[in-house]
Amino acid sequence: MKPTTFAIRGTVCFSTDSQNLTCLENAFIVCQDGRTVGVFPELPAQFEGIPVEDVGDQLIIPGMNDLHLHAPQYAFHGMYMDLELLEWLNQVTFPEEARYADLSYAEKAYSIFAEDLRQSATTRASIFATLHVEATELLMDLMEKTGLKTYIGKVNMDRNGTADLQEKSAVVSAGDTVRWLTDTAGKYENVKPILTPRFTPSCTDELMNALAELQRTYRLPVQSHLSENQSEIAWVHELCPNTSFYGEAYDQFGLFGSPDCPAIMAHCVYSSDAEIALMKKRGVFVAHCPQSNTNLSSGIAPVRRYLEEDLHIGLGTDIAGGHSLSMLRAIADAIQVSKLRWRLVDDSLKPLSLEEAFYMATMGGGAFFGKVGTFLEDYEFDALILDDRGLRHPQPLTARERLERLIYLSDDRCITGKYVSGNKIF
Amino acid sequence: MKPTTFAIRGTVCFSTDSQNLTCLENAFIVCQDGRTVGVFPELPAQFEGIPVEDVGDQLIIPGMNDLHLHAPQYAFHGMYMDLELLEWLNQVTFPEEARYADLSYAEKAYSIFAEDLRQSATTRASIFATLHVEATELLMDLMEKTGLKTYIGKVNMDRNGTADLQEKSAVVSAGDTVRWLTDTAGKYENVKPILTPRFTPSCTDELMNALAELQRTYRLPVQSHLSENQSEIAWVHELCPNTSFYGEAYDQFGLFGSPDCPAIMAHCVYSSDAEIALMKKRGVFVAHCPQSNTNLSSGIAPVRRYLEEDLHIGLGTDIAGGHSLSMLRAIADAIQVSKLRWRLVDDSLKPLSLEEAFYMATMGGGAFFGKVGTFLEDYEFDALILDDRGLRHPQPLTARERLERLIYLSDDRCITGKYVSGNKIF
Repeated sequence: MKPTTFAIRGTVCFSTDSQNLTCLENAFIVCQDGRTVGVFPELPAQFEGIPVEDVGDQLIIPGMNDLHLHAPQYAFHGMYMDLELLEWLNQVTFPEEARYADLSYAEKAYSIFAEDLRQSATTRASIFATLHVEATELLMDLMEKTGLKTYIGKVNMDRNGTADLQEKSAVVSAGDTVRWLTDTAGKYENVKPILTPRFTPSCTDELMNALAELQRTYRLPVQSHLSENQSEIAWVHELCPNTSFYGEAYDQFGLFGSPDCPAIMAHCVYSSDAEIALMKKRGVFVAHCPQSNTNLSSGIAPVRRYLEEDLHIGLGTDIAGGHSLSMLRAIADAIQVSKLRWRLVDDSLKPLSLEEAFYMATMGGGAFFGKVGTFLEDYEFDALILDDRGLRHPQPLTARERLERLIYLSDDRCITGKYVSGNKIF
Repeated sequence: MKPTTFAIRGTVCFSTDSQNLTCLENAFIVCQDGRTVGVFPELPAQFEGIPVEDVGDQLIIPGMNDLHLHAPQYAFHGMYMDLELLEWLNQVTFPEEARYADLSYAEKAYSIFAEDLRQSATTRASIFATLHVEATELLMDLMEKTGLKTYIGKVNMDRNGTADLQEKSAVVSAGDTVRWLTDTAGKYENVKPILTPRFTPSCTDELMNALAELQRTYRLPVQSHLSENQSEIAWVHELCPNTSFYGEAYDQFGLFGSPDCPAIMAHCVYSSDAEIALMKKRGVFVAHCPQSNTNLSSGIAPVRRYLEEDLHIGLGTDIAGGHSLSMLRAIADAIQVSKLRWRLVDDSLKPLSLEEAFYMATMGGGAFFGKVGTFLEDYEFDALILDDRGLRHPQPLTARERLERLIYLSDDRCITGKYVSGNKIF
């Protein structure tokens, strides 16, 4: 029987909002029934006698929330990087995803993915699978066992795929989606389904209408891609001549989410003023994926503007447009590309600070999962224990300096412990 | 007694020029007297009986040449990343470098640097120390023991420093430089001195003249910084009103190198046509430092143009403007920023390929050190053995795919062996 109340003692760092990072050395963080009670300089009297794990000088930080990644693409992460989005989809991604029709391949590949994600800095994630029902259910089974909290989506795509990777019709796609939802209903503690129309060019209007009906019936959140690349945007405009911007292509079917059941839209590199206004109105979560947007030569999203306009925004690794599974690396990447955007594109949008990028990886994205992403009272207790003793240095460092160094060196070897909702993962 | 002739058997990858990568599985690479004899599918008859190390399926690639990094700044790598160049120098860099007046601090810090560089992908490097003679000699002693081949420069700076980090006069600076050169003459097998005027704003004309005389007397190569940041360029223009571009501020004193004794100029982000023409004429080696240019919001150098104009170009980590010591990471970074430059700045300069960036890290920068950077006949035998078994994957991979993955995941944990001029480092 696991203790329902316990404390961890160490150097605690967490965001309180997008501008402020709190760092406390030798502090006690108390967890009760999976939620944070608070962070204290001394263990409060009412908690005397609870189990206390002393992690010494190690850092305790909130877990990271990866708002966008593709599990089947992990098989080729870090490869085939010399292509742009649409050619990369056709030449690399679609052929690889087609292999997940073979369950034995899927098991081999998804087992590696699940184990690597378990060991990473990520505690929660929103994940694309493939269009295959069986392989998606296998992925859900594997992810359930990791103890991480995830949304996983069977992908819908009934046009512009390949002979090997496309659903035969909207009816087949919707039918498979119902089968998937029925098969997995109530089956998992940690995994939830999320509707996943791949992106507008992959889905006929008939399919979008069917998915919208499923969305209303099952009250499901949605994840998709938005305004990632100029050629993609031009293509959507051709496919949906009745829309004035890309986001409308989802919204016209009711698939752009609503504040009480929001959608995650990955990228938003080239969102227009009207699109941004609609994203705000619908409560869309922007999944900013700086590494992927760089690797696929897409561009750099105006993240400062999204923060200023108070949109929901988190970070995504976008495996395998992004090559690294590390959300620590995603924080550093977000800062880095914001500097290049400021220098090269628009000097009215100043670069992100460490505080802001850390916030996005923790609280910003965490809000999609509920009260998640910080150590404020009543937030779910997702935490990482980080040991930076292997990163030698000649001088004393503050907690914030140590955190910055761990982020930039994005060394997942340093992760010695991980909790999700108060459960110890390792 | 070490064998002077030996072979290693494994999967061999190396550049033959800037466009072509050769990958051979189960190949024998033969080293004789510190130089490569060749790469063969079978061990040639005349080498029968020489020691053969079989590294199995591991990759054997040329060592990496880091053309630009600051040893004293390694103490704060991955920290204080929210600043631009000139404020970063004054607030972070100069105060830290001042600490190297204290030899016990220098020993602590440089020992960490030397050991980490020894274990990294780097086999050769051109390194800035500080202005301190004793600490620079200590760094040279430590680097000598690593077995890596390095150029190390005592820094010259007699203006625009801080009270704690500036030489009292040009005479003192030049005198210290002579003392350093005299102290270390003939002392090392692996370490050579390189003249290191920090950058134009740090050096009076009187100092530049004195250094030019030393350059001619000792026939030394030069390393410095060039056209990194717009504010820096404007400042140089104010300081040197007689010059029409930054490079002339070195060249007017004869400190821009010559084809038979070239200079390394770090960054070259904003070099004008005239500056590029002079760089070409003088045989300057451009040290492209993509990570640093990103972190310090400097911009992105037009590397494609330098390649097309056939300039010498290699990569630098620029610790600690760059945060990572990994030259594998520098290769990936160079590709990544070239994509953003193509997308955001100038679509006439297409992104770098993996082949081109790998070439820069090996052959491109290697040329500064002689016949270095590839496994063609008679090149010095600098090599890395890379074990990627820890990076699991579900499908068979080609050698090139494995190399790309190692570069993008830049996982120095994978380095299981390292040779410099035929000597085994580990």
